[in-house]
Amino acid sequence: MVSADAPFLRACRREPHDRVPVWFMRQAGRALPEYRAIRGTGTIVTAIRTPDLATEITLQPVRRYGTDAAILFSDIVTPIEAIGFGVDIEPGVGPVVEQPFRSADDLKRIRPLDPEADTPFVLETVRNLVRELGDVPLIGFAGAPFTVAAYLIEGRPSRTYENTKRLMYTDPELWFALMDRLADLALASLHSQVANGASAVQLFDSWAGALSPSDYVRYVMPASQKVLEGIGSTGVPRIHFGVNTGELLTHMRDAGADVMGIDWRMDLDDARTKLGDGTALQGNLDPVAVLAGAEVALDRSREVLRRAGGHRGHIFNLGHGVLPDTDPEVLERVVELVHTEGKVT
Amino acid sequence: MVSADAPFLRACRREPHDRVPVWFMRQAGRALPEYRAIRGTGTIVTAIRTPDLATEITLQPVRRYGTDAAILFSDIVTPIEAIGFGVDIEPGVGPVVEQPFRSADDLKRIRPLDPEADTPFVLETVRNLVRELGDVPLIGFAGAPFTVAAYLIEGRPSRTYENTKRLMYTDPELWFALMDRLADLALASLHSQVANGASAVQLFDSWAGALSPSDYVRYVMPASQKVLEGIGSTGVPRIHFGVNTGELLTHMRDAGADVMGIDWRMDLDDARTKLGDGTALQGNLDPVAVLAGAEVALDRSREVLRRAGGHRGHIFNLGHGVLPDTDPEVLERVVELVHTEGKVT
Repeated sequence: MVSADAPFLRACRREPHDRVPVWFMRQAGRALPEYRAIRGTGTIVTAIRTPDLATEITLQPVRRYGTDAAILFSDIVTPIEAIGFGVDIEPGVGPVVEQPFRSADDLKRIRPLDPEADTPFVLETVRNLVRELGDVPLIGFAGAPFTVAAYLIEGRPSRTYENTKRLMYTDPELWFALMDRLADLALASLHSQVANGASAVQLFDSWAGALSPSDYVRYVMPASQKVLEGIGSTGVPRIHFGVNTGELLTHMRDAGADVMGIDWRMDLDDARTKLGDGTALQGNLDPVAVLAGAEVALDRSREVLRRAGGHRGHIFNLGHGVLPDTDPEVLERVVELVHTEGKVT
Repeated sequence: MVSADAPFLRACRREPHDRVPVWFMRQAGRALPEYRAIRGTGTIVTAIRTPDLATEITLQPVRRYGTDAAILFSDIVTPIEAIGFGVDIEPGVGPVVEQPFRSADDLKRIRPLDPEADTPFVLETVRNLVRELGDVPLIGFAGAPFTVAAYLIEGRPSRTYENTKRLMYTDPELWFALMDRLADLALASLHSQVANGASAVQLFDSWAGALSPSDYVRYVMPASQKVLEGIGSTGVPRIHFGVNTGELLTHMRDAGADVMGIDWRMDLDDARTKLGDGTALQGNLDPVAVLAGAEVALDRSREVLRRAGGHRGHIFNLGHGVLPDTDPEVLERVVELVHTEGKVT
């Protein structure tokens, strides 16, 4: 059973704690040889749908690195896939949608999620993990409505999000209807993860940084707010994250985040200035710095700790997910350094 | 002959002028039917190397839209291609390099540029244009050392710039040697464009926003500074631009820019607050807003003008290049709106 005194949870709440906690986005997965060994030839979707496998994959990085939190092995498209929208996850590409969302007719393809019936495998994995993890907190997660919408509308990863923005600009009624359904989907999924034992949640709005601040506030923030405020009733810490979000940080925080994930494009002392003392910060080592070997990674990790300034409310992480070519031994040394040198003053 | 009183030039210098000038990055090119008609089946490199064609392509958008400036039809890899590094421009992809830059040996492949001998076609195009453009200023340009280096090292467009950053972090001596050669290349090219009649220059550091602020300052800014300060002796206005550069703006300005290009991720009033009154701003309509039709584009253009606040020193532009699927008639109406409603107070 996880104690509320786990360093990760205390840091999320900005309560006094001794050491800087650390975990890595995408810590489970491609970079680990033990992951490649266990995954075999099945698809990612199959792995997510197989609780014993998803449990083991989630545990691997906690065992190897000694991270202060685990993150459920799943994907932001798991709920929408589970209700039959027709989403696949292509290795090296990400989510792809055979019949992209194009018109009001497509709304019919997005019914409410019944987590027990639609994603029982997720809940079984969560329960397994809570049992196996002992005092290491499990982070549940969901895709934010904008980022999931972008996948559904573009059909695959995009550089410009042309179709998404075009729909948003030209058919706001349909846009808001879509966002509302995706908010309900994310909220139902997060509620079920927390009810089964997740100790914190992260809302991934990975691609929100493609928007201008005024578009974010008008078209995206209300739906993210519905999710974050909705899950707020459970009392678990809420982490909110995207890349290229320097100009969106205060809005994303105001949507209802206890912890803001910061990518590597902004120094943590500047993020602290921008957000004030009431918000915890998660980040923000450049994932590419880890590819450059231990010396560079440790040097940059020290810089991250220095800029975090020993404040309560810093969770060490990368500024985005672990890259596939990452050497796990370098991440082991980063964890060791954070645990040894990351003092909270 | 261009008058120093051209609204674009006065806005660059923040001198009093009546109307807000406007031009568009990539205004010449793919979105124009007259461009597609004239380009035929030759390669982009061939078009750049054919002065009559490059001249006509540059003039097309000035005629159609009535923009307040022309930008030379060329590419940021033109100088490095001209000295034989082996770069091609793939339609829909961008610059690709057959043998990427990998080691100190590759430095030998980057000799100094002799603009008269290596890029006579560029200079002939510039001279043609100055003659044809009358009182419309011509903007010359170059790729900033970081962005050109990223193309040479990655070999093609990248999402993570893994190889570039790895070289930068692990072999700073080679990195700075490469940056210095690329700075010399850019500077020689810009000097030759100005000597032949370009009235302003833009340094494109399109991908600098992939860097953390401290990496930018340490590894990139000195070389960009060499270019911008070097061309400063000519007295022409210097525009400096990249995307995702919210946290880099003051550094990029301090590298020696008179005008900072702002992408759509930051509101112009916030950019003004960040940069103060001493810098002109260029931007920043989301290129995707233009794809959504005239109503959306005009609405957003008014918002850009409103946030620019009627300050001297605003040059209206998109926040990045014109997208290939853009309807030129929408851009015509944007220009009309900026010229009608864009008052300088």
